[in-house]
Amino acid sequence: MANLYDVAYDLEKAIRESNEYNVLKKAHEEIEKDESAKQLFANFRQLQMTLQQKQMQGEQLTEEEANQANQQFQLVQQHPLISTLMNAEQHMSNLFNDMNKIIAKPLDELYGQEG
Amino acid sequence: MANLYDVAYDLEKAIRESNEYNVLKKAHEEIEKDESAKQLFANFRQLQMTLQQKQMQGEQLTEEEANQANQQFQLVQQHPLISTLMNAEQHMSNLFNDMNKIIAKPLDELYGQEG
Repeated sequence: MANLYDVAYDLEKAIRESNEYNVLKKAHEEIEKDESAKQLFANFRQLQMTLQQKQMQGEQLTEEEANQANQQFQLVQQHPLISTLMNAEQHMSNLFNDMNKIIAKPLDELYGQEG
Repeated sequence: MANLYDVAYDLEKAIRESNEYNVLKKAHEEIEKDESAKQLFANFRQLQMTLQQKQMQGEQLTEEEANQANQQFQLVQQHPLISTLMNAEQHMSNLFNDMNKIIAKPLDELYGQEG
């Protein structure tokens, strides 16, 4: 039987060497070099987190908050460095979802969940 | 470079073959065979989930609810099949936490998080 921790470290290594990870890393480095992009993105993240927390606590967003989030989203998407980073994050997130689905399968079977 | 999905499937296999997983699977099977244990545990889970949902939505539990949860917890812990299952779930949960920490390391480094 393969040692579980060895295999987990193999997976960590494969993630680190993946195209998705290296594109993401590069996008991060580009943003770090551009102070205005960095600040714009940090503000957007902060707003996103604040609104998500509200929603998780079962609160409805006001129309003003929803509009503000939308406007900020459109603004950051027009910034090439930020949109590149957000795309890279989405790809990485999809990859992690796939990985998690695969390694959760044994438990899903036990707890009678589909797929 | 190792194919990411192949390594994830290796990890799934290693989990499936692990001692922790097989102890958990056995504990599940034992509960399934015992209708009263199964029912008692299902009720406990249901109560736990209801209270956790309340807490996640930022609501405080009433003293009565906290007492009820405590009593139910002590009750199920005295049941040998259920306490065996709950221990096995705790071990499996620890294992998954370890795995997740390992495979999240590349991202933690990017986002400047410790360990």
